[in-house]
Amino acid sequence: MREVAIVGVGQTQVREHWDMSVRDLAVAAGRGAMADAGIDRVDAIYVGNMTSGSLNQQRQLGALVADYLGQWGVEAVKLEAACGSAGSAMRQGIIAVASGMVEKVLVIGVEKMTESSGREITAALTGAADADYEVIHGVSFVSLNALVMRRYMHEYGYEHGDFAPFAVNAHANGAKNPNALFRRAISQEVYESGRMVAEPVSLFDASPIGDGAAALMLVPADKAPEAVRVTGSASAIDTLGIHDREDPIWLSAAQKSAAKAFGQAGVWPEDIDLFELHDAFSIMAALSLEAAGFAERGQGVRLAQEGEILPGGRIPIATMGGLKARGHPVGATGLYQLAEATLQLRGDAGEAQIDGANLAMTQNIGGSGATVVTHILKKA
Amino acid sequence: MREVAIVGVGQTQVREHWDMSVRDLAVAAGRGAMADAGIDRVDAIYVGNMTSGSLNQQRQLGALVADYLGQWGVEAVKLEAACGSAGSAMRQGIIAVASGMVEKVLVIGVEKMTESSGREITAALTGAADADYEVIHGVSFVSLNALVMRRYMHEYGYEHGDFAPFAVNAHANGAKNPNALFRRAISQEVYESGRMVAEPVSLFDASPIGDGAAALMLVPADKAPEAVRVTGSASAIDTLGIHDREDPIWLSAAQKSAAKAFGQAGVWPEDIDLFELHDAFSIMAALSLEAAGFAERGQGVRLAQEGEILPGGRIPIATMGGLKARGHPVGATGLYQLAEATLQLRGDAGEAQIDGANLAMTQNIGGSGATVVTHILKKA
Repeated sequence: MREVAIVGVGQTQVREHWDMSVRDLAVAAGRGAMADAGIDRVDAIYVGNMTSGSLNQQRQLGALVADYLGQWGVEAVKLEAACGSAGSAMRQGIIAVASGMVEKVLVIGVEKMTESSGREITAALTGAADADYEVIHGVSFVSLNALVMRRYMHEYGYEHGDFAPFAVNAHANGAKNPNALFRRAISQEVYESGRMVAEPVSLFDASPIGDGAAALMLVPADKAPEAVRVTGSASAIDTLGIHDREDPIWLSAAQKSAAKAFGQAGVWPEDIDLFELHDAFSIMAALSLEAAGFAERGQGVRLAQEGEILPGGRIPIATMGGLKARGHPVGATGLYQLAEATLQLRGDAGEAQIDGANLAMTQNIGGSGATVVTHILKKA
Repeated sequence: MREVAIVGVGQTQVREHWDMSVRDLAVAAGRGAMADAGIDRVDAIYVGNMTSGSLNQQRQLGALVADYLGQWGVEAVKLEAACGSAGSAMRQGIIAVASGMVEKVLVIGVEKMTESSGREITAALTGAADADYEVIHGVSFVSLNALVMRRYMHEYGYEHGDFAPFAVNAHANGAKNPNALFRRAISQEVYESGRMVAEPVSLFDASPIGDGAAALMLVPADKAPEAVRVTGSASAIDTLGIHDREDPIWLSAAQKSAAKAFGQAGVWPEDIDLFELHDAFSIMAALSLEAAGFAERGQGVRLAQEGEILPGGRIPIATMGGLKARGHPVGATGLYQLAEATLQLRGDAGEAQIDGANLAMTQNIGGSGATVVTHILKKA
């Protein structure tokens, strides 16, 4: 099994790209990563995407993207695991390089959402939950997260305002990222003024959707001794329905995939310099910190309140805005996280740079914790 | 890179399964493959599926299927490449085992279509083509194939009736397969009586959709010296749009992936004992025979007319009914092909058994040849 290195990064800004289709976005990010790596011919392309079938009427995205990248003859396929699609694409890309069967792998996460109506988008997103046992009762994806947040607040005695530090940190960091959707810091007051979307999830507890694509070029590590390395890669599933879990406020798949990735990398949570977690909702940020070993149960919010998630804190999170401020083009997000972590380790994160970043962790979540993909990256 | 063996086969019949959801079908086939292999815990699950997002409102099928198979904590993801989805899932399963990162991989192809309206199904299937440059002009997936068939007939001087042997062979073979949708032989006259669907594609030139799932258990070959081996595995893409190809009646991705698989296996077309090809339409059967090296250009139909595609012929195809008679649950088909090829090599194909089958080839196609996945299997 070969070690894998990341030799190219490409991304588009997350926003409403009225002038770009799903193919244009994927090609822009893919070309960016290939150019960054100085590679013009790849062996395989893995595309992470959640909604192209219904929102873009495209059900063969691997071939579509490879075609428009001029990569005829290569192998290409789309991976789908709801909002964990792009992390899953990365995972397959790593396995492919590690297998020795391919040398140069392009992984792309892409999502084109804003051309569709709110109703279409909401319907597509509920596909992350269980259509037959959850959605049939009328829940949307936001309301499912609201139920989890409410239970968490009840169990650990938090108020809504206690979650503010997640949004405040994300927006402050997003302001430093030219590719972020929202580039303006917010205060605790602004957070508290956010209207309720699905109580207790307010506007500032929910990440915004958007259009965007991010991509990485992967090669065997021995071909790129100076490049960022993948030292941990693991994916795990939990029950799809939250009601089937012994504990609805514990992300067991996040714990399992994190533990596996730590084991592979030979490191512990305290060794990690920054954590790009899946803050689709404030509650998911808290639960991720706990499941991944950065906080005790019920202490994820406390950790944020103590400022430890800020740049310079014990475990900086959402360092370039996270899903909350960079934006959450669902099936692309996992690769934005990985692209940002790579930039941090290369020292290329600009104003958002975390000083001395040596080890970065990313965690991409599908649904309410049903698919969780964890990666650990290391500076060369 | 480790060799891979197939140690379990599971499948449901292809038909309208009014009593089974997409999860029920996948679980039935998955359990079947695991039971056949005597394995109750797997390391990874790859699910091939095309339309679950829109037809079943499920966009996290990997986790869903793993959950209902009781495989909590494993890694699982869905692969999508239109009708080439299941072949792509197999390809990733092989890469995963070959990488040494996992030991026991379950690959499942599943599709649940018949609960939806004809309009919804037709719309979902056009996702295999290019929404922006093909479908926008009003073509359906059938009419695209009709254009290709018409061109082929024009170039090589064939009549519609010349294509009959493909349907006649498929239906004769399907009659011997208990899991086939259609289990009745047809004559040349019946073929010619078929009403036109999209001229010159008649009813008997087009494969029927259906509900179904097929699955295989994969392990490293050194753990199963008696099991069927994968000796070739390759995937390649062509342009998504047919209009972008230099030659619209040549499947270049089929040629490339076949050549690569032959190279890996160290064999030639004449060594293959049976070929489970992607006869979604009669024209695709002819083009596949040509691109994969079994017939000269323009001679695929001739080969069929000479009886060489029958059991006992030079290259038996669709030995258990093919897409035409076994049925074509789109994203599951690639694994039906592989399951059938495995049964043939194990001598477990019942009435459909090809005597002395030692080497089998499968070819699963996404769209009109945009994604083509070829596998070569060998008797232990």
